[in-house]
Amino acid sequence: MTSTPLDFRSDTVTRPSKRMRAAMAEAEVDDNVIGTDPTIAKLEERVAGVLGMPAALWTPSGTMANLIALSVHLQRGDRFLATRGAHVLTNELGSAAWLAGGMPDILEHDAGPGRPTPDLLRASIGNPGPYFTLRTTLLCLENTHNAAGGAVTPPEEHAQLVAVAKEGGLKVHLDGARIWHASVALGVPPAALTAGVDSVSACFSKGLGAPVGSVVAGSAEFVERARRMRQMLGGGVRQGGVLAAACLVALDNVDDLVETHEQARRLAGGLAEHGWGVETPDTNIVLAAVPDLQVALEWLGSLGIQALPMAGKVRFVLHRDLEPTAVEDALQRIKAAA
Amino acid sequence: MTSTPLDFRSDTVTRPSKRMRAAMAEAEVDDNVIGTDPTIAKLEERVAGVLGMPAALWTPSGTMANLIALSVHLQRGDRFLATRGAHVLTNELGSAAWLAGGMPDILEHDAGPGRPTPDLLRASIGNPGPYFTLRTTLLCLENTHNAAGGAVTPPEEHAQLVAVAKEGGLKVHLDGARIWHASVALGVPPAALTAGVDSVSACFSKGLGAPVGSVVAGSAEFVERARRMRQMLGGGVRQGGVLAAACLVALDNVDDLVETHEQARRLAGGLAEHGWGVETPDTNIVLAAVPDLQVALEWLGSLGIQALPMAGKVRFVLHRDLEPTAVEDALQRIKAAA
Amino acid sequence: MTSTPLDFRSDTVTRPSKRMRAAMAEAEVDDNVIGTDPTIAKLEERVAGVLGMPAALWTPSGTMANLIALSVHLQRGDRFLATRGAHVLTNELGSAAWLAGGMPDILEHDAGPGRPTPDLLRASIGNPGPYFTLRTTLLCLENTHNAAGGAVTPPEEHAQLVAVAKEGGLKVHLDGARIWHASVALGVPPAALTAGVDSVSACFSKGLGAPVGSVVAGSAEFVERARRMRQMLGGGVRQGGVLAAACLVALDNVDDLVETHEQARRLAGGLAEHGWGVETPDTNIVLAAVPDLQVALEWLGSLGIQALPMAGKVRFVLHRDLEPTAVEDALQRIKAAA
Amino acid sequence: MTSTPLDFRSDTVTRPSKRMRAAMAEAEVDDNVIGTDPTIAKLEERVAGVLGMPAALWTPSGTMANLIALSVHLQRGDRFLATRGAHVLTNELGSAAWLAGGMPDILEHDAGPGRPTPDLLRASIGNPGPYFTLRTTLLCLENTHNAAGGAVTPPEEHAQLVAVAKEGGLKVHLDGARIWHASVALGVPPAALTAGVDSVSACFSKGLGAPVGSVVAGSAEFVERARRMRQMLGGGVRQGGVLAAACLVALDNVDDLVETHEQARRLAGGLAEHGWGVETPDTNIVLAAVPDLQVALEWLGSLGIQALPMAGKVRFVLHRDLEPTAVEDALQRIKAAA
Repeated sequence: MTSTPLDFRSDTVTRPSKRMRAAMAEAEVDDNVIGTDPTIAKLEERVAGVLGMPAALWTPSGTMANLIALSVHLQRGDRFLATRGAHVLTNELGSAAWLAGGMPDILEHDAGPGRPTPDLLRASIGNPGPYFTLRTTLLCLENTHNAAGGAVTPPEEHAQLVAVAKEGGLKVHLDGARIWHASVALGVPPAALTAGVDSVSACFSKGLGAPVGSVVAGSAEFVERARRMRQMLGGGVRQGGVLAAACLVALDNVDDLVETHEQARRLAGGLAEHGWGVETPDTNIVLAAVPDLQVALEWLGSLGIQALPMAGKVRFVLHRDLEPTAVEDALQRIKAAA
Repeated sequence: MTSTPLDFRSDTVTRPSKRMRAAMAEAEVDDNVIGTDPTIAKLEERVAGVLGMPAALWTPSGTMANLIALSVHLQRGDRFLATRGAHVLTNELGSAAWLAGGMPDILEHDAGPGRPTPDLLRASIGNPGPYFTLRTTLLCLENTHNAAGGAVTPPEEHAQLVAVAKEGGLKVHLDGARIWHASVALGVPPAALTAGVDSVSACFSKGLGAPVGSVVAGSAEFVERARRMRQMLGGGVRQGGVLAAACLVALDNVDDLVETHEQARRLAGGLAEHGWGVETPDTNIVLAAVPDLQVALEWLGSLGIQALPMAGKVRFVLHRDLEPTAVEDALQRIKAAA
Repeated sequence: MTSTPLDFRSDTVTRPSKRMRAAMAEAEVDDNVIGTDPTIAKLEERVAGVLGMPAALWTPSGTMANLIALSVHLQRGDRFLATRGAHVLTNELGSAAWLAGGMPDILEHDAGPGRPTPDLLRASIGNPGPYFTLRTTLLCLENTHNAAGGAVTPPEEHAQLVAVAKEGGLKVHLDGARIWHASVALGVPPAALTAGVDSVSACFSKGLGAPVGSVVAGSAEFVERARRMRQMLGGGVRQGGVLAAACLVALDNVDDLVETHEQARRLAGGLAEHGWGVETPDTNIVLAAVPDLQVALEWLGSLGIQALPMAGKVRFVLHRDLEPTAVEDALQRIKAAA
Repeated sequence: MTSTPLDFRSDTVTRPSKRMRAAMAEAEVDDNVIGTDPTIAKLEERVAGVLGMPAALWTPSGTMANLIALSVHLQRGDRFLATRGAHVLTNELGSAAWLAGGMPDILEHDAGPGRPTPDLLRASIGNPGPYFTLRTTLLCLENTHNAAGGAVTPPEEHAQLVAVAKEGGLKVHLDGARIWHASVALGVPPAALTAGVDSVSACFSKGLGAPVGSVVAGSAEFVERARRMRQMLGGGVRQGGVLAAACLVALDNVDDLVETHEQARRLAGGLAEHGWGVETPDTNIVLAAVPDLQVALEWLGSLGIQALPMAGKVRFVLHRDLEPTAVEDALQRIKAAA
């Protein structure tokens, strides 16, 4: 029986838990545009601490969190560097270019999945030049790196990249939508992965179970400018405390990622046995190289196994709303149908 | 005793009711970016019907709803017409220009508060011209009109303006953030106020009590483009059904505005007796002309009466979270202190 | 006989004189993108002095000169103030909004044609407000004011407006496309009309006879940023000295405007006698109010009299390529045909 | 003696010839904004024919020609594909992103210098996807390819790339700033290199000796939109015929490139003997890999040999204003100093 769908499309599909819904129903709230919602304030303070940043700002989505950071950091036409397949390049509908006004250049992953070497970064900066040349002002990192299969960048590599960026006069933004996963996989606190950055985004919907909400963190001055940019983009909400309450609960769910990562490894192992090209995942994302992507996705669909394409492969995302047996169930369906 | 603050700052300060919180806690939800959240879908369908439009799209704020509409309608550099003090011009941080790419021109309120005459509109369109001249492509109306003191535009005047716009080849966007108030004040359904428009925004946070949420409605094709624009701007959320559930309850609160408008008239009467320049309000907003705006706001603040400046006057906004006695309480404090 | 067309369309229709063409043919030149063209450098230095500014930058058009200034001064979403009908609002295809990213607000001409009162300006600035409100950062003046019929702003009024702008924390840009005309009409040097501004544009094609070229002037730091912006917009040219040579000659043509203005007054007088609504012009532009604009333009065309519409009126522009008898010729044709 | 500087910085440094200056001095002109300059019209018609396109538009620079094309083709946020190091990505100050609103993705040169394989292109397009994904709408080619050392793309490879782009629903823009060089090197007319494109830019300043001027060509409808975009950007000039006259002469200089290319090959041969990493050039650009770029440039400078950096190498550009002996002179200086 393959009737129950197994949803590996994304870790954003999770539904709020009972505890989360109760917290939302009881949240203390106020108008967060013309004043300050106390629950948003509480979340922002707590998450700033967790991320090791002076201040933080709640946003309705991770896309907006990144967009705000880039819009604050970039002047019109500034060149910024990002890794091939970075979320800001490939999953945000071009807003980094047309809204934030930045001209991207792409760093290949020559140090390992999701990250460049310090040498490649150094060679790519290219500043300073005469007035008629591009000015590079920002490095965007992503940890974990979605298109690289949830790959982690360890703290020491992160620190080296930040150091090279700073030498070159760049600011650094970290897309830490899944920084929780990197933290758990590496066994270090999130703040160990933000050392030296000018801003970091993080998401409460990706793996932690919150229905809506991300955050962008940085200096107090950065957050002040970010607040204004959020309002410009239409991200200022009123009694957002109902959502922040869920995000606060989500922060308590980080440890559950240990189990999620274990599931990802089991799925990867099984798919490799099935003959698909699969690397052992660092975190909760499994990329499988298949002969024909479209055929594979449809075949999986016919087995009730939902997945999405990513970087030319099948992407399976593990998350807290999957049954403990979901991986084994999926592998069984695949084995039976093969 | 003036200890209890009386909050006339905005009708966005209301907190979700128990019923609303319960609805949020029980909302059926799904990932509304990669799929469809059922409660959002239900809201969008219901509100499209109420507004008399083929389709609707939930957004996190009214600012984003307007911004999406303008971004869909306008090509870079297009001229659009809006009334002096329109929310899209004065309260959205310039996004209509730098994001939507439109060059505004301002229509004075020569037909009455909040609205131009058809003749002024006709004379202002100016199309067509040679290639080196601006191309006017959009008229933005606002009903009720915030900066004009919540003034309503009656259906027949609306229809005349839309007709002139259409003759001139313009699209029409209606900022209907408080279309509920116009509907109640005029005794017509909201759909009677959207006749002929290409898009309309409406807000669930302004007077109806929802914590977060607006909507932009139009043709199916418009909404398809709007959905993409929402994602670009970072307004795509995941299990937004928790918010849509509150918006659905908010739609049941429209009739309560009758009482709110009555309160506004009582406040206006009292302020006029106090000697301030006040017109009888159409809806829930009272503008008071005072000799010195800053002094007046501070004096009111010292009495525990919170209000904000608007168009050079003191703006008092009536809403559902004020006590039934709030108006009388405020007038008494003013009388006692004068 | 009405066979010879009389071209009152614009003072941009003039053809380079023999002296100008000779200067172009002999101009010393170099690559002005990767280096410095000596003739451009000479022009920039001379015109900076004439305008009383520290530095200047050649541009291919007045539209680009203004666009560069606004792009340098404005951050995304900044509010700027300009007079109704200002060239930056109505004749530059919306670039001030979508490219420079500014949200305009319109000042009526309550002090006289082309200029607001200091009081209106003061009341319109509105800074500072809370983070969620527009931030006004720039005042744009225009002298002479095209849509106001070439009206001049005298130095003392200019100084008052600049003073109010500075008190309010604004920068000031002067669109001085026809500052030459204002200078001649007022009997003061151009530098007397730029007092206190942060930038000024001026044009060599409007009345002075150069085929191509404008300039934007300001501080050395402003010009450095402007140079970069010019390159971004595609206004960086190579051996532009061939054009700058013509602009240098054009600067010698300023005094001829005395005669041009005299012609304008004669034309205005004649048109008034003909019964059209005409004010005595300050400079070289005559606006005539007519019962039906389209009919009037076509009727004039049938008489071989070419003019363009402006602000709902017929605009006649006097210039150096008109025969000395052109005005009398035109008036005779009108009288004969009436 | 190394006193005479040898200028290999760019082929844009050339000065107009006597014949060119004479043509400029005699050019028939008119106001090309409100009307049509006859010499610009003549140039546009002639060059459209040469390029095999229905219509063409003069622009003040190649950067603006490309920017106009991208702005016409791209909707906000559209993804476009360009080759690594493409001029639109690296030499136009980010305008393709912040002005044209496009999000670039980079194609490596896997088919040879300056060009991708059809397979890489096909795999990179990625259309169509769901609404929340980037939409790829444009391919930018560059022939010759500047950063690839003036490399040519032969007609058959061009045709294959265009075919794949069209299959994928993309438009194609060709940056043909140096299409003249490609034409001469390949022995085919320029029109053979524009087959199937939607637009092509070409430059009269790069190697052909004109002081100012480029062109962008496409369908009549494209050019109509491009004309409007040119005006928006401030590229509309008045009596531009003085420049177009020089561009017409420049078109007669194409055959001289045969000699220029021969010089480039001699220089490349000599530099290779000197031990620098040099490929035999296709056209007039020689890239030399050196141990330390900054040191090499300074050392060359001390010998009176001017060159600029490009893609991490020393770029020597050959052009018509170099003496016939310039290459031998340079090689001698290098040999003597080594």
